[in-house]
Amino acid sequence: MPNAKAYSATSPTSPLALTTIARRDVTAHDVQIEILYCGVCHSDLHQVRNEWSGFLPTVYPCVPGHEIVGRVTKVGPAVTKFRAGDLAAVGCMVDSDGTCPECLAGLEQFCPNVTFTYNLPDKHLGGVTYGGYSDSIVVDQRFVLRVPANLGLAGAAPLLCAGITTYSPMRHWGVTRGKKVGVVGLGGLGHMGVKFAHALGAHVVVFTTSPSKKEDALRLGADEVVISKNADEMLKHAGSFDFILDAVSAEHDINAYINLLRRDGNITLVGAPEKPLAISAFGLIMGRHSLSGSPIGGIAETQEMLDFCGKHNITADVEVIPIQKINEAYTRLLKSDVKYRFSIDMASLRSE
Amino acid sequence: MPNAKAYSATSPTSPLALTTIARRDVTAHDVQIEILYCGVCHSDLHQVRNEWSGFLPTVYPCVPGHEIVGRVTKVGPAVTKFRAGDLAAVGCMVDSDGTCPECLAGLEQFCPNVTFTYNLPDKHLGGVTYGGYSDSIVVDQRFVLRVPANLGLAGAAPLLCAGITTYSPMRHWGVTRGKKVGVVGLGGLGHMGVKFAHALGAHVVVFTTSPSKKEDALRLGADEVVISKNADEMLKHAGSFDFILDAVSAEHDINAYINLLRRDGNITLVGAPEKPLAISAFGLIMGRHSLSGSPIGGIAETQEMLDFCGKHNITADVEVIPIQKINEAYTRLLKSDVKYRFSIDMASLRSE
Repeated sequence: MPNAKAYSATSPTSPLALTTIARRDVTAHDVQIEILYCGVCHSDLHQVRNEWSGFLPTVYPCVPGHEIVGRVTKVGPAVTKFRAGDLAAVGCMVDSDGTCPECLAGLEQFCPNVTFTYNLPDKHLGGVTYGGYSDSIVVDQRFVLRVPANLGLAGAAPLLCAGITTYSPMRHWGVTRGKKVGVVGLGGLGHMGVKFAHALGAHVVVFTTSPSKKEDALRLGADEVVISKNADEMLKHAGSFDFILDAVSAEHDINAYINLLRRDGNITLVGAPEKPLAISAFGLIMGRHSLSGSPIGGIAETQEMLDFCGKHNITADVEVIPIQKINEAYTRLLKSDVKYRFSIDMASLRSE
Repeated sequence: MPNAKAYSATSPTSPLALTTIARRDVTAHDVQIEILYCGVCHSDLHQVRNEWSGFLPTVYPCVPGHEIVGRVTKVGPAVTKFRAGDLAAVGCMVDSDGTCPECLAGLEQFCPNVTFTYNLPDKHLGGVTYGGYSDSIVVDQRFVLRVPANLGLAGAAPLLCAGITTYSPMRHWGVTRGKKVGVVGLGGLGHMGVKFAHALGAHVVVFTTSPSKKEDALRLGADEVVISKNADEMLKHAGSFDFILDAVSAEHDINAYINLLRRDGNITLVGAPEKPLAISAFGLIMGRHSLSGSPIGGIAETQEMLDFCGKHNITADVEVIPIQKINEAYTRLLKSDVKYRFSIDMASLRSE
């Protein structure tokens, strides 16, 4: 079995550090990928620090990373979608049962037997799956995506989670030309939401608490920026939004945004605040508004998203770091001190 | 101007008592109705006691009542839909601007200039509109509904609010044959929800905290009854509901029901708890679930609902009372001591 270099955490409080992990030999349907870039998602940090212990306890050592782009180095004999030398990408899932109604509907993210890219049982090697903070990975071709050749790879990596997480609900709730779309929170997810809503032809309004983000929001594709603390500015938009993407993980007043929806408007949460949200029933009833959530997207839709990005030349705005800076990056992530996503250049791991 | 007998409250703390109010002469498009029955909605009590002061302060004297059925006594020269002697009904609205996009879409309940049946400015007489706790009412034919001849009138009255409030979200969220539908709370609204879901062909599950309601729920059309305090029983239904109607106005844990939804399932609130609801973002995200609200329905849909009731012989289960018992009925309403709606026999008012 080939070994791989990786960065792992051995406990909730230990920093990530160099280790060696096993990857399987390619089986008939497998694609072996040399990882070139891996985005840094806030979920990586939650999992590494076991902050989701009630939902998905962390098994150590933990190798996070589910925003993976790289180059195919080897394929199994039954692989038809890829050949050595191709660009390839892997997102949050590496397997599913393939037979349940969700899988048959192309919605593998809802499969009861889905295998996430890290921290879920690895049916090939035992133990748990190891993610993309590594120099290579082996994945069934069903879960390997094609990367349009025109995209910068460092910025393409975050599309695999931040991208699909914001693209999917916009498609699901019908964001198209002529719709008015709000994006709450301009971070790793939110900045992708702005780019997608703009490229889909919507009128895009960014809500932020920081006037300093205004210029950047406009650069990313916003048509307007509203300082959410300004009640007068908020009131001007009352009852006018078809769709709002709420990408804020911190506690905040969602009712203020529900009131901005037009009749039948929807607000979708893609950030998950830890504490329950306090929701006024009246705000939902009065305009037949809906509040929903959305997790990533299926494989077919992830490919659709990547192809859309190729067509519109969309990537994430990233700060490229060597893997040796990952612990520092986590500290900065907690302060939202990144515009807008860290992307690890995995050459730094190979040379270590 | 013709006078009408009515029961009104003169302050938030005074009981309803006999009074005389003015009704307008019929104008060109008006229908004059002798009121035969008026249902008693919890909103009547809220409005009379000024419990919605932040949302819609009560103007006194207040004549509530928006579940009205009766017989046409006179029509204006331009009225084409009704003639004297016809059965007729009036619900929660008596006017709207007729020109806004909501009105043009047949969704008058969302018109920014909608006139509710009581406690909103009366553009004909000044003051505010007076509702159905009265022996007559005059309403523009646009807001007068036809009543199928086969329906008992006492039980038909509550269809005008409790009926449309539960029918409309089921139609909006696609309740049809083969769907699994939950109804939370078996009161005035909930019992109508059970009847509609059953008549629409769904598999109906009633959630209740009271084992004593089981038999009645089955009689009303439920296929199953789940005691919501029983965690094991609840768990058996996890991830299985297409739609849940939540008709509970008291504080309760909605997350327990969100977890029962299948992927893309919706839970709609038609009761409005006073305090904000504590909603877990994870429960919404994991199955792409949505939480929404819904207020009554448009005029065309209200007619559709009445016609559906005619076809399926659906009315509310009512306890008929004389209007002299209305204050006692309010006391009992607060204890949920009614199966399932009070309906006032307005002959009692005429003989007073």
